[in-house]
Amino acid sequence: MLKKLLIANRGEIAVRIVRACAEMGIRSVAIYTEPDRYALHVKRADEAYSLGENPLAGYLDPQRLVNLALETGCDAIHPGYGFLSENAQFARLCEEHGIIFVGPRSDVIHKMGDKTQARDAMRAAGVPVTPGSEGNLADLEEALQLAASIGYPVMLKATSGGGGRGIRRCDSADELKMQYPRVISEATKAFGSADVFLEKCIVNPRHIEVQILADSHGHVVHLFERDCSIQRRNQKLIEIAPSPQLTPEQRNYIGGLAVKAAAAVGYENAGTVEFLLSGNEVYFMEMNTRVQVEHTITEQITGVDIVREQLRIAAGLPLSYRQEDIQYRGFALQFRINAEDPKNDFLPSFGRITHYYAPGGPGVRVDTAIYTGYEIPPYYDSMCLKLVVWALTWDEVIARGQRALADMRLHGIKTTASYYQQILQHPDFNRGHFHTGFVPEHPELLQYSDKKHPSEIALAVAAAIAAHAGW
Amino acid sequence: MLKKLLIANRGEIAVRIVRACAEMGIRSVAIYTEPDRYALHVKRADEAYSLGENPLAGYLDPQRLVNLALETGCDAIHPGYGFLSENAQFARLCEEHGIIFVGPRSDVIHKMGDKTQARDAMRAAGVPVTPGSEGNLADLEEALQLAASIGYPVMLKATSGGGGRGIRRCDSADELKMQYPRVISEATKAFGSADVFLEKCIVNPRHIEVQILADSHGHVVHLFERDCSIQRRNQKLIEIAPSPQLTPEQRNYIGGLAVKAAAAVGYENAGTVEFLLSGNEVYFMEMNTRVQVEHTITEQITGVDIVREQLRIAAGLPLSYRQEDIQYRGFALQFRINAEDPKNDFLPSFGRITHYYAPGGPGVRVDTAIYTGYEIPPYYDSMCLKLVVWALTWDEVIARGQRALADMRLHGIKTTASYYQQILQHPDFNRGHFHTGFVPEHPELLQYSDKKHPSEIALAVAAAIAAHAGW
Repeated sequence: MLKKLLIANRGEIAVRIVRACAEMGIRSVAIYTEPDRYALHVKRADEAYSLGENPLAGYLDPQRLVNLALETGCDAIHPGYGFLSENAQFARLCEEHGIIFVGPRSDVIHKMGDKTQARDAMRAAGVPVTPGSEGNLADLEEALQLAASIGYPVMLKATSGGGGRGIRRCDSADELKMQYPRVISEATKAFGSADVFLEKCIVNPRHIEVQILADSHGHVVHLFERDCSIQRRNQKLIEIAPSPQLTPEQRNYIGGLAVKAAAAVGYENAGTVEFLLSGNEVYFMEMNTRVQVEHTITEQITGVDIVREQLRIAAGLPLSYRQEDIQYRGFALQFRINAEDPKNDFLPSFGRITHYYAPGGPGVRVDTAIYTGYEIPPYYDSMCLKLVVWALTWDEVIARGQRALADMRLHGIKTTASYYQQILQHPDFNRGHFHTGFVPEHPELLQYSDKKHPSEIALAVAAAIAAHAGW
Repeated sequence: MLKKLLIANRGEIAVRIVRACAEMGIRSVAIYTEPDRYALHVKRADEAYSLGENPLAGYLDPQRLVNLALETGCDAIHPGYGFLSENAQFARLCEEHGIIFVGPRSDVIHKMGDKTQARDAMRAAGVPVTPGSEGNLADLEEALQLAASIGYPVMLKATSGGGGRGIRRCDSADELKMQYPRVISEATKAFGSADVFLEKCIVNPRHIEVQILADSHGHVVHLFERDCSIQRRNQKLIEIAPSPQLTPEQRNYIGGLAVKAAAAVGYENAGTVEFLLSGNEVYFMEMNTRVQVEHTITEQITGVDIVREQLRIAAGLPLSYRQEDIQYRGFALQFRINAEDPKNDFLPSFGRITHYYAPGGPGVRVDTAIYTGYEIPPYYDSMCLKLVVWALTWDEVIARGQRALADMRLHGIKTTASYYQQILQHPDFNRGHFHTGFVPEHPELLQYSDKKHPSEIALAVAAAIAAHAGW
């Protein structure tokens, strides 16, 4: 087993990995830049090292992190998600210095990070991809010809893009002509590559992704799917496992596709294969070669500890489970509680948490790095807490989500929590019937009032009655 | 379904019931006496009513609670555990006033609360009981004769006792002569009845109890067992589900006995049948006619929401599950975090919580009514938090328990948390091999030092290094 792990991340995922280390007897090493000096991952890790004043540079410097791992005697680095987690150069640097990178080999990261290479590999493996480019586009002319043949709308995408950025929808040739130079410019700036490709735009699909685990002994299993259709501008808000929108046959089919996809590229460690569903059609979208924010809900329905498995796989151990050992039970929802003001176009709302009360009781899990008195720094992601609920049935999990959202107290900043309570009340959501257009199609769900918690009003009334009744 | 529920309790179980109400659309009514004015169950319920200055009287006054339920338009009362939960007179008063008592009928509570009647009923139903009295003892002479025939040691017990009180072990005739008047005196004072009975003392048994659910349509199911052998003076400290000490055959056999026991007395609602295991012998001990503190771990392994089922049953609905629908998965542990000082003979340690941080992440559930700033009143039970952990395997659940106990922060009072970390490290506990004598046989586990959390020391060192390294 691994002896000492450098966690090349911050926030809730760093805390999640520290906890896995604590349970597995692995010594944990945290890193931080000065704005994170009082962060929870720093408090909870066995050791912690400052990487300077700059809020971001330390988290994004591959050579420095590898050097720190070597200096502190770590045998492995867990990259978390975001930051350097899908940076093939970082993984290669680890390989060159004899540090275990908790993830797939660098060449696999590189291949799956290049969207056209990934599409080509999937096509070759018999995994359906959306109609579109083979390889990158040579020029606008090729883009226009291809779009005319597959039909509008089309998506123009940066080949090295990710996280929902470097993507434009084009509904006509005129729009394609306008967006083509923009996406190239954006891709060059954001990802350092001018490569773009084109694919058919699947209108209002379901976003379904499959969690897979693969070890170094050639075993690949899937842990069923997550439905991430509740998104805003390609950012997931509420994730669901399993999807209430799949038949058992579709579930088996998509799980099998994901295993095939991972096996085809010699994948190792945890990963996610993302698909778009439109009617009965399934299309490969991309593969995320890291642990995902929403791995939690898969853990809740299957009981498998995904971060634990990541560390076991990295240590060269075989998977703890065969496919037939992995069963799912009930439904789990994850609410990404973001420090944002939904009523003000989701403007980030950083600042000090004046009061935090963690919801508890049956079927509630919280992953967060915040605590009362913590000041959320403005330099990072606005997601500050993951509230996960589980119940045996769909109706119960929705009721539990409402209850847990109401139970939580998070004062001092604006958050998306009340907005999620509105989504849970929508009849389409209740019926388990939604696609990626749900959020933009329902702006009326933003028309809620930030009212006091009803019990506080009731209590005030009850106290007044009690006072006059002379109790 | 029920419309409005009066919760005749306080603390974490009142919060647990408020949460179930919130998820089921039932309006919740809390009660409190003045020391509980700022208690969480009061804050979270839809309505709350004061029952006066006396810390206890309000919680223990059947007529007043029934009147309050009538006045506030409640159709039902949930008694929780402790207080009036096993008070047959309270249940009867509810029946007489048309208020649904969330529990079995008053005559069943009465019968199972009378230990000799319960033993007789079980014997008649073919459920094995420990060798001992049939009915109550007439006098000391009968006790001595019976003890001589079944062999010492024997247990002398108050017929109306419960919660581990009114029980004495006698190893010889001399001791029996000495204890007989004492138990009668104690029983008269504590339970208002001088009735006592005698049974064979099972030395160092396993304490195994089975959770059952029974509806008003004649259906009874069991939800597998809990192992509560880790006790101190008959008070449970750590509970485990399922027991790591049972074979699948024993599990089926004991589950079947519990269903038979409940069916034999026409039981309705949630209940627990407690057994003693000695080698391969199983003996009925008693039945608890209410929800138990440790119902949480059964919820974690089966996914069944027991309080929800209680409220459904009370509303006259059939059980949501047939026996074959109920599966268990993994292991769950519950740590009863008591406001006590283990190093000072578990002396209660009430006072203000200066800092509370709820442990989180995978497989962790917390049920508590405390919060930072809350002052634990000295009038009630010392149990202030239930920390529940779940994992797929026995080794993982122990590691998770250690991690969660270390993750929690609870300052301002002494608690039993560090003591439980010692128990988890013991080889016998690790092997899943323990009986009710474990705690008294291992006083050395109290010899731990209340040291600083290792990460704080490491952090101080790391900070000093970092400061000198000029990072």
